[in-house]
This record gives sequence, structure tokens and C-alpha cells, in this order.
Amino acid sequence: MAWARIKTADGHIVTGLLRGDRLQPMAGLGSDQTQGAPIPMQGASLLAPCAPGKFVGLWNNFHAAAARNRWAIPTHPLYFLKPASSVTGDGATVALPQSAGRVVFEGELGIVIGARCRNASAAEAEAAILGYTCINDLTSLDILTADPAFPQWTRAKGFDGFGVIGPVIATGLDWRDLTIRTLVNGRERQSYPAADMILSPPEIVRLLSCDMTLEPGDVIAVGTSIGSRPVKAGDVVSVQIDGIGSATVTMQDTAE
Amino acid sequence: MAWARIKTADGHIVTGLLRGDRLQPMAGLGSDQTQGAPIPMQGASLLAPCAPGKFVGLWNNFHAAAARNRWAIPTHPLYFLKPASSVTGDGATVALPQSAGRVVFEGELGIVIGARCRNASAAEAEAAILGYTCINDLTSLDILTADPAFPQWTRAKGFDGFGVIGPVIATGLDWRDLTIRTLVNGRERQSYPAADMILSPPEIVRLLSCDMTLEPGDVIAVGTSIGSRPVKAGDVVSVQIDGIGSATVTMQDTAE
Repeated sequence: MAWARIKTADGHIVTGLLRGDRLQPMAGLGSDQTQGAPIPMQGASLLAPCAPGKFVGLWNNFHAAAARNRWAIPTHPLYFLKPASSVTGDGATVALPQSAGRVVFEGELGIVIGARCRNASAAEAEAAILGYTCINDLTSLDILTADPAFPQWTRAKGFDGFGVIGPVIATGLDWRDLTIRTLVNGRERQSYPAADMILSPPEIVRLLSCDMTLEPGDVIAVGTSIGSRPVKAGDVVSVQIDGIGSATVTMQDTAE
Repeated sequence: MAWARIKTADGHIVTGLLRGDRLQPMAGLGSDQTQGAPIPMQGASLLAPCAPGKFVGLWNNFHAAAARNRWAIPTHPLYFLKPASSVTGDGATVALPQSAGRVVFEGELGIVIGARCRNASAAEAEAAILGYTCINDLTSLDILTADPAFPQWTRAKGFDGFGVIGPVIATGLDWRDLTIRTLVNGRERQSYPAADMILSPPEIVRLLSCDMTLEPGDVIAVGTSIGSRPVKAGDVVSVQIDGIGSATVTMQDTAE
């Protein structure tokens, strides 16, 4: 199944399950209660599939990247938060602010939480995962390292549109089977297996739930692997995961 | 005037303006539209005065702290985000997770945004400030510095209850007149003038609005000055600012 969030032709925002060319509105993300009649997708626009109250991003969570960069293997998620204002969906254009300097894409697997979760057991953590989505965790390299005393993770990753989530939240997948691919203007630039993760999705959720209460709709980007590169205005950047789909955005100069 | 958010005796959450011993419900934070009859405060409980979509915290924004620690003077806010789940209000108890190790209080002035704001001019930034509140930006020192490759600002400051906001949002104050005081078990541990700030509230809002769209209810903790200290279970920690009030919490062992 796939959860989606749309803006209807008459401007309503609806969350539901995709069924062919229609969306079945549901009472809430992860709910099993329908709410009204199916809505034709034609004329509706796809939004980011949820509006996360928390948008967590992990650093250093793939063996290949850790090995190449000689990073120590973490035993607890190392993370930052992206602001709600950074969220955008498939099909959007994303402005490159002049102040951001060099910006890179980071194609990632995203976990979406489906149930409140605090100090979870391994089984509770696994059950709290509603499904998976594609993420592009856009990042300004220049801002990240601009201040020698304070790495600016939040600012570097927090510009409007720098948190691409989409196109849907797919349920029933085994994360071990997934491959994360990033294409720039149709050319493959990242392709790595989710199975290379250091901390697995259930383990990430379990450990994060010891730090903070997780809520339905919270999104966790599990980190990227090797192959991240700078983007420029005009680039079409697509993060693709078979079984989920692709989240594609077009980079744009702020002056355009 | 003072904005407050309460839970009524029958469990409704209401935002409005305090008028004597009653709350006048308003259509929304910062709105000039009333919504229904005044509610007696007796029997209601005060919540954090808003539910921020973004809770930004600044590092290194006071001259006295920068001088003592030999930090360079920043020209742009250096910041992290605290998760929504960290928010609590005056009168709460805050658990000290064992995993957090040494936790310190940080008494701070908080800016509350009243209007959407993006790439704001100086005048627009000033106008976007609804008012001010007291903040205790609780921080685990042990987690902040646990990983040599990745300072964990978000995790260190993100535990449930580690973002104390309250008791109200006071409007019509001149921030230059304010003194931030922190008392632990009645003993004064911090007392410093807001006028010692490096980046002023309007300048912080202007610069942040170039990084991300600010929304009504967003909270910005402007950073602390010298005097921050460890807390332990049983401590009553109160951040007080004349003209706003005090935000007081009791620290508690997780086992209690």
C-alpha cells in the first residue's frame, strides 16, 4: 500500500491511500478508518506525503561512507533536525539561495513513524514504522563548515525546500531489499543498498525513542552513502527507490 | 498584554489574552479577533504559551559569555533546533534520563513570532515579533561532547521536557530593558542584561528569515550568558524576567 497527501483541485489537503488513479481519504496517517469517497488523482497535486512534526536526519550511517571517510562506527544515531519549512514534495522547484554557496544532494531512505513511540522495545520500534519514503537531504557544504567553532548542520540543511520527501509512503517493504539511487539530469550519481546501513531502521527508531517521544508523521532520514555531489540551477535531481517511486525536484536560482 | 495557552477543566486547549483572572480566547496566536467568552483561570492549567512549529536555539550570543570563553563574535545566528516533543511549560516536572548524564540549565530570553516572515527587512523583522517569553534550554553536557566527530546539539537539548517555555508571551516590552535571572532552589545563579546580546532580536529574526520561512508561534531562544550550572533531581529551577514572569520546573529522576 502507499500513503499519499494531495491538494485537491478545490484546494483541500487530504491524506489517504492510493488505489489506482484515486486516493481513498483516511481519518489520519496510518489510520484504518476511511473518511469519505475516493478522490480522482487527476487535477490534484501530490504534496510531501506527510507534514512531519519532527524531521530527523542522521549523519554517518553507512559502512561504505564511514570506511571512505575513516569515520568511527556510531552506536547511537548521530542526528540533526531539519525545520518543517524545509519540507517539499515530488515535482517541486527548489531555490538555491546565494548565501548557501555550494549545495549537494543526498539521496536517502526515509522512515515514517505511524504510532507514538517512547522508550520503545525492539518490537515496538519495528511496529511504530508506518513505511518508507524517498528523501533528498539537500545540504550547503559552505555553510556547514563556515564557522570553525560551530558546525551549522541545521542552517546548512534548513533552507526552504531543502527537505524533499516523496512521492508516497510505501508500506509492507523489507528495507533490506531496497536500493537508493540518485539521478541528476537522468545520469545515475548514487546507487547503494539500504542493507549497508550501520544502524537499521528499527534500531534507529528504538534508540531515538529513548531521546524523544516520536509521533505519527515524524520522518527520519537514515543518512546517505557515497556519491553525493554539488547541484546547480537547472539540475533535475531525482531520488529513486524501487517499490516507493521517485522524488524529483528542479534546482533554481533565487533570482529566477 | 500577555498571551497564554491553557488546558481548561474539561480538557480543551485554548489560546488567548490574560485579563485579570480570566483568559479571553482569541482566534489564533497574535490575532485581534476574540473567540467566545472569557474563561476563569481557576481550574485551568497553564501550558507552554505556544506550540512552536520551529524551536530555534542560539549558541554564543552574549558578549560576556563570548569574552569568558574566548569565542569569536558571530555575524549570523549560530543555531540548532529543539524538537516539539521537548516543549514543556511552567509548573512541569522534567525527567533527567540516565543516558543524559550531566544536565545544565540555561536561562534565556525567548522571541515568539507573530507573523509569517521570509527574507524580512529590519522593519518587517521587528514587526514579526509578537512578544517575549522565558526559556530554560536544558542541555546534557555529556551528550553534547560525547562524539568527537559530531557535536550532538540536537540530542543534548532534545529530551522530553528540555525546552521549558513560559509562563506567557508578553507584548509591548523593550528587550533592552530586560534582565534574565535563573534561580535554583531559590538561590540566584544567573542574572544578566538582555542588552549584552551580540545579535539583537530584530536582527536575529531578519537573519533567520533569510535561512527559513518563520511562522506564527515559532520560538527563538536567543542564547544564554554566563552562570549556567548542573542540575540534579529535586532541584526547582526558575527562569525569571520582570514583565514576563517565571517559568519554573522541578527536576526528577526517571525512576521516580
